[in-house]
Amino acid sequence: MQVPAVPEESSEHFFEGVEKLLEVWFDESAMPTGDLRNITRNQWEDLLRHVKCEIISFAQNEHIDAFLLSESSMFVSRRRWILKTCGTTTPLKCLEQLLQLAEVEGYSVITDIFYSRKNFTRPEVQNSPHKGFYEEVTYLDSIFPEGRSYCLGSINQECWYLYTFSRPVDGTGGELQLKQQQLMQLPDPVADPDQTIEILMQQLDNDVMALFSKDKFATGQEVTQSSGIDLLLPQMHIDDFLFDPCGYSMNGINANGEYMTIHITPEEKFSYVSFESNVALDNYTRLISQVIKTFKPGKFIVTIFANKSSLAYETMKELEIEYSTLSNWQRTDMQCCNFPSYNLLFAQYSRGKSS
Amino acid sequence: MQVPAVPEESSEHFFEGVEKLLEVWFDESAMPTGDLRNITRNQWEDLLRHVKCEIISFAQNEHIDAFLLSESSMFVSRRRWILKTCGTTTPLKCLEQLLQLAEVEGYSVITDIFYSRKNFTRPEVQNSPHKGFYEEVTYLDSIFPEGRSYCLGSINQECWYLYTFSRPVDGTGGELQLKQQQLMQLPDPVADPDQTIEILMQQLDNDVMALFSKDKFATGQEVTQSSGIDLLLPQMHIDDFLFDPCGYSMNGINANGEYMTIHITPEEKFSYVSFESNVALDNYTRLISQVIKTFKPGKFIVTIFANKSSLAYETMKELEIEYSTLSNWQRTDMQCCNFPSYNLLFAQYSRGKSS
Repeated sequence: MQVPAVPEESSEHFFEGVEKLLEVWFDESAMPTGDLRNITRNQWEDLLRHVKCEIISFAQNEHIDAFLLSESSMFVSRRRWILKTCGTTTPLKCLEQLLQLAEVEGYSVITDIFYSRKNFTRPEVQNSPHKGFYEEVTYLDSIFPEGRSYCLGSINQECWYLYTFSRPVDGTGGELQLKQQQLMQLPDPVADPDQTIEILMQQLDNDVMALFSKDKFATGQEVTQSSGIDLLLPQMHIDDFLFDPCGYSMNGINANGEYMTIHITPEEKFSYVSFESNVALDNYTRLISQVIKTFKPGKFIVTIFANKSSLAYETMKELEIEYSTLSNWQRTDMQCCNFPSYNLLFAQYSRGKSS
Repeated sequence: MQVPAVPEESSEHFFEGVEKLLEVWFDESAMPTGDLRNITRNQWEDLLRHVKCEIISFAQNEHIDAFLLSESSMFVSRRRWILKTCGTTTPLKCLEQLLQLAEVEGYSVITDIFYSRKNFTRPEVQNSPHKGFYEEVTYLDSIFPEGRSYCLGSINQECWYLYTFSRPVDGTGGELQLKQQQLMQLPDPVADPDQTIEILMQQLDNDVMALFSKDKFATGQEVTQSSGIDLLLPQMHIDDFLFDPCGYSMNGINANGEYMTIHITPEEKFSYVSFESNVALDNYTRLISQVIKTFKPGKFIVTIFANKSSLAYETMKELEIEYSTLSNWQRTDMQCCNFPSYNLLFAQYSRGKSS
């Protein structure tokens, strides 16, 4: 049985699983020892107080630090910082402190920033500056005057918001060079390959959601295995957490410095699962199918970002066709955007009438 | 010299060139003699009173009736109706009367509706229900409960709004058939080929704009020839009008029933030119280049709609690449959307720093 995502009465128990996702890339540090991972645990804890969340677990390898938070996750690499938080957290409020901490490490130039989220199920319970996308954009514009804001999907219904700022290509030479690369179909030699896939799922299967509860399991590790989460990207070293009485979070990191993260709000009336990874694949169709089979949503959104150096970049067009053949799913929307250094594919699916 | 589109003082003379574009397709009439062109001139005049504009000229051939209006144009075919109006007109206010007049001709089912416009230069001078896109969507939703609304481009800056409703594909059979057609790459056998290109230009060259004035020419015909408008699509039979003291409108129709229409607001402080046509081409790059060379804008938006039966449909992907090689133009945005029966390509350009 599928239930509407909005509770009938606003006084009922409710948790906003929909996350706010903030990703910041800095240009190379001015200091040889510059590294965002030099920022101390105490400094991160202090920063996260502005967001209203706490660190509950930590894992790392030589490439990446992965923090599990009371509301979702934070990933720190040498010059990239990712914060994903759900509930009524206020991630934009820590941006200025982040810029200060980064500056100490010699990072004074931002090359790319992405702030994105699905429409909230209940926007009225959010705190400033997250009470609406216009408020969020106004806040971001006060820090990044050149940012651009988008709404993908139907703006009065299900949609996904994106604010993005990229350091402008400077001067005519840079532009001409870029054009020539496009003509010759060469990848941009400067940027690191980068791609991010997110799958945001709602109206999930009750039997699957029942797994993510202290009634069924004692530890995150047990439910990670029972649910099949450990099979999605088998090379990942997993740090997982099962909340009491229910709810689940995991971070995975692998030897290439790639990450994955899953967050689950299992309550039937507002069930929500997010999957995110920057794993480099030349085709995401198999991964999408496996995630969907694992969680059995009633509807979901897929977003794929890929820059010109990414394996995913050229195959995004193919995906457009392959997506449409996923059986039993009706694609309600598909859009793609070309940004200065990234392509974005957005697609929205709901169960077809026949299923 | 290019000037900002927004006048410095709101009390200054201002005219909103940006049009509201409404296109409605009906399913086949229940009556053998059903034809929207049976609607009388008096009935159209009465309908246009709700919009606050008047008919100033008329042309027709066996396929299409083309009306020049005091604010832009109206095109009437057997089962398709297009209304494009600028200034502070209220085109949505005539929708209910249109549906009544169409019903008399046996048209009771709408297959597709598109309402679109660029962001207004001065939204505060518009009349209800056009004071904002949300108000327009609310109004349309009261008539078409299944419509979807989009914003392409950056939502706080330059953007283009679209509301679209398509008759749902009914039942499982229809969906399966559609999937099979996609797999086999066959065109939908039901729909007529259809495509629409719009080029919306601002910050236009002063010398070009000076042509569209009674100071320079006495008639529309003279300026059509002097400006090179007659060369854009040479097979078109043109009905043109030069306003006093300045401003220009033209409709063109050809033997295939295709149309083109151009509307020009030449005043330097808020110059605006729109080009629109449904001419079937397998590549629009040459046409876009010729339009841009004719009017010399500082920035412009291109939108191309094409259904699965259209020649344009398969070549839209190629255009993505070709667009980017238009010299001296910096593409600030490009998005494409897959709708149930149409694809849409949206691109935004401004003059590069080198020009």
